[in-house]
Amino acid sequence: MSKEITSRQVDYSQWYNDLIIKGELADYSAVRGCMVIKPYGFGLWENMRDALDKMFKDTGHVNAYFPLFVPKSLFEAEEKNAEGFAKECAIVTHYRLKNDPENKGKLIVDPEAKLEEELVVRPTSEAIIWNTYKGWIQSYRDLPILVNQWANVVRWEMRTRLFLRTAEFLWQEGHTAHATKEEALEETLKMLDVYAEFAEKYMAVPVIKGVKTASERFAGAEDTYCIEALMQDGKALQAGTSHFLGQNFAKAFDVKYSDKNNQLDYVWATSWGVSTRLIGALVMAHSDDDGLILPPKIAPLQVVIVPIYKNEEQKSLIDAKVNHILHGLKTKNIRVKYDDSDNNRPGWKFAEYEKKGVPVRLALGVRDLENNVIEIARRDTKEKQTYSLDNAVATIEALLENIQQHMFDKALAFREQNISNADNWDEFVRLLDEKAGFIAAHWDGTAETEEKIKELTKATIRCIPLNNPQEDGKCVLTGNPSKERVLFARAY
Amino acid sequence: MSKEITSRQVDYSQWYNDLIIKGELADYSAVRGCMVIKPYGFGLWENMRDALDKMFKDTGHVNAYFPLFVPKSLFEAEEKNAEGFAKECAIVTHYRLKNDPENKGKLIVDPEAKLEEELVVRPTSEAIIWNTYKGWIQSYRDLPILVNQWANVVRWEMRTRLFLRTAEFLWQEGHTAHATKEEALEETLKMLDVYAEFAEKYMAVPVIKGVKTASERFAGAEDTYCIEALMQDGKALQAGTSHFLGQNFAKAFDVKYSDKNNQLDYVWATSWGVSTRLIGALVMAHSDDDGLILPPKIAPLQVVIVPIYKNEEQKSLIDAKVNHILHGLKTKNIRVKYDDSDNNRPGWKFAEYEKKGVPVRLALGVRDLENNVIEIARRDTKEKQTYSLDNAVATIEALLENIQQHMFDKALAFREQNISNADNWDEFVRLLDEKAGFIAAHWDGTAETEEKIKELTKATIRCIPLNNPQEDGKCVLTGNPSKERVLFARAY
Repeated sequence: MSKEITSRQVDYSQWYNDLIIKGELADYSAVRGCMVIKPYGFGLWENMRDALDKMFKDTGHVNAYFPLFVPKSLFEAEEKNAEGFAKECAIVTHYRLKNDPENKGKLIVDPEAKLEEELVVRPTSEAIIWNTYKGWIQSYRDLPILVNQWANVVRWEMRTRLFLRTAEFLWQEGHTAHATKEEALEETLKMLDVYAEFAEKYMAVPVIKGVKTASERFAGAEDTYCIEALMQDGKALQAGTSHFLGQNFAKAFDVKYSDKNNQLDYVWATSWGVSTRLIGALVMAHSDDDGLILPPKIAPLQVVIVPIYKNEEQKSLIDAKVNHILHGLKTKNIRVKYDDSDNNRPGWKFAEYEKKGVPVRLALGVRDLENNVIEIARRDTKEKQTYSLDNAVATIEALLENIQQHMFDKALAFREQNISNADNWDEFVRLLDEKAGFIAAHWDGTAETEEKIKELTKATIRCIPLNNPQEDGKCVLTGNPSKERVLFARAY
Repeated sequence: MSKEITSRQVDYSQWYNDLIIKGELADYSAVRGCMVIKPYGFGLWENMRDALDKMFKDTGHVNAYFPLFVPKSLFEAEEKNAEGFAKECAIVTHYRLKNDPENKGKLIVDPEAKLEEELVVRPTSEAIIWNTYKGWIQSYRDLPILVNQWANVVRWEMRTRLFLRTAEFLWQEGHTAHATKEEALEETLKMLDVYAEFAEKYMAVPVIKGVKTASERFAGAEDTYCIEALMQDGKALQAGTSHFLGQNFAKAFDVKYSDKNNQLDYVWATSWGVSTRLIGALVMAHSDDDGLILPPKIAPLQVVIVPIYKNEEQKSLIDAKVNHILHGLKTKNIRVKYDDSDNNRPGWKFAEYEKKGVPVRLALGVRDLENNVIEIARRDTKEKQTYSLDNAVATIEALLENIQQHMFDKALAFREQNISNADNWDEFVRLLDEKAGFIAAHWDGTAETEEKIKELTKATIRCIPLNNPQEDGKCVLTGNPSKERVLFARAY
């Protein structure tokens, strides 16, 4: 069988694209920079979304839906936010097409159907939401507002990559309003914790929690907190952000509340989001040269069963046993498929489900039936083992948990091996080039130095970790004094 | 207390808007024709969506996601579809804003960032999806494709109404591909059945299944099947449609498959959708002058408990009992809220939950505790009754089922009373004006007559019911011969 997936060593970037396309997560589309999320990829997203949605609801949030379009006058109200997104937004200017008088069957934009005010397709929804909150908030009794939205957003990126950077993407955006600064800060960090827990427990991707430097902040935020993950090529990936917005949007949209003493003050805000980009992180954190490796908790399919038979008589013996196992697995809410299609041979099926990253594969033949055993292969380590058929369901259930934990442990060990201290410039550059990963180094705290390092090495400050140990040191570039190390990396 | 909701008798249309706004389902937005779906309304939509999604999956469908934008050249490929939607679509022409040199802090569209090809914001996704399916389908082995998408779509309606007709709305759109005409037709009718079952079992809204006349067909369909519901003002509302698309889109996008004999043929298609418009139908089918009346199966909140106390000592006695009931209800997955907030008096709370249509309200005071009873009020009939506290949970569970059934029965009785036969033009006009509702009348089968009747009366043919009895008759307008009655109504 020809090798369908390019090896990581040969071309990491092509490997990634092969995994997405051949693992049937997504497809290119006819629209520049936009992708089609295929059923298998969408099934993965649904599992991620449902788990996150439950975590949001368990922490007191509710969902709502706000318009796709932001009138230009609202878009420009919060100046920094507008400046940050103006360069890459899709703009609706007309509301009708008409027949092209010069080309039968073709349509042209009707110049008479020009909008009085242009509409920006939301790149993020602070503007439209805070304009709405103005009508919802009068008194402290109306606070907090803890709202989340699952939506599509559009950012006109020039260089796009499947899942990692697309013109349109799916995400959730939480937008909360609070009476006090303390409460808003607490919410910001609470949601950062939710994201970190989701990444680690569901995606099996360890993350570092930290705060961004001023130059890496969300446009319009006072502080941006983030979770940063490490990919197999040693590059970092920002997997989620939680912003403390201060009173910036409340001021831009004049949203005040009266407190218990009838004093008026501006409302405090947060926003936080993760997107389908997480799927890119998931793919790059775990997969190998044979295809995807998906963690059981969110895998669309957790178990696949492949029968091995030569005739219908054998098949019906196997079917009977498999139906028993299927029933047992479904009772445990395990997502299982029995692939007894005639179209392809077992070997083809094995390769197919390997490519798609199904965590556990069972193979069952007549000889196995005679011996009352079943062959179970795990995708992550590629180990195969024969187990008794008697307690197959319990074996599989335990194995799924084991795989989930093992995937996390492996990714964590990799990350721990790839955090290095650099104490001078030469070491910094050498580590970046030879080892990549996160580099913990002293920085003098200035935007100029940060920018200079980025120019010289393409490495950016990923974050200043939370609870960062304080120690005296010297900036790796300028030698100026510093009180703590920050994490540098080249990043997606 | 001042009457917050306009009575149906005074102003039906204002009554509807009051229900939506004061019941906190939705809010107007700053974007022309777009609304904000508030958390309570979105909770309702989530319950509807989840129930439908399960029904789709149980019938073998999977979800996927396709781009928001349709390049103009794809949009115009299926001529009738393009013609049908060209007049009301939002068009993206540019991808960047820049600072207005003449107005500091303002932005203008950057004329240098004009798209080579305009993008239509999807009003429906047949074009972008069939262009994608072209790459997915080669052989009969790739069929059927049974895909659904939950998405937002935009149709630039000039006269909008909350939920019923908005420029942007949320919906699901199923898009299936089949090897044979028979299979596609079967799918079309299967999904019509799913919609009818959902409307009746979950929304408690009885519907008539039928097929549209040629002039009311979806643009690009061979046949459009629909479910039609009756509102309290006697107007009909199309609640869902399922289209048999024939080979129209396969031909427009050149999607062929090779069959078992290696013969090439165009693929057969269906599409089907329901939208947030269903919420408008739900509101108008059941509510009264005191507010919303929501069916238990999809109500965001099924039960609310209001404590009645004069001091903290009384309150803690009540709390203890309520916690017991809360636990029992939650164990049964009943959505319940204990409103023990100090901000408002019980009477205010009663009115509030009545307005929001919560199916069951419990009130509990110390006297009730002494008597070991609880007062239970049902929203639909406004009956109040005192029950033993001992089996409160079982009582409530049974009551919720009873309410669901009663709401359906009532709506069905109303509809049955409002289907009338008209055998001549005078009767037709009189019934329409005096009684409204559905009018079953003979029609000569021509588009001209249909159009003329619409001009004269604003009534349209809602559908030709499935399994329609055949009988000889004469067209109410022209007197020409007819073989069956069709259903006319004025409609939303």
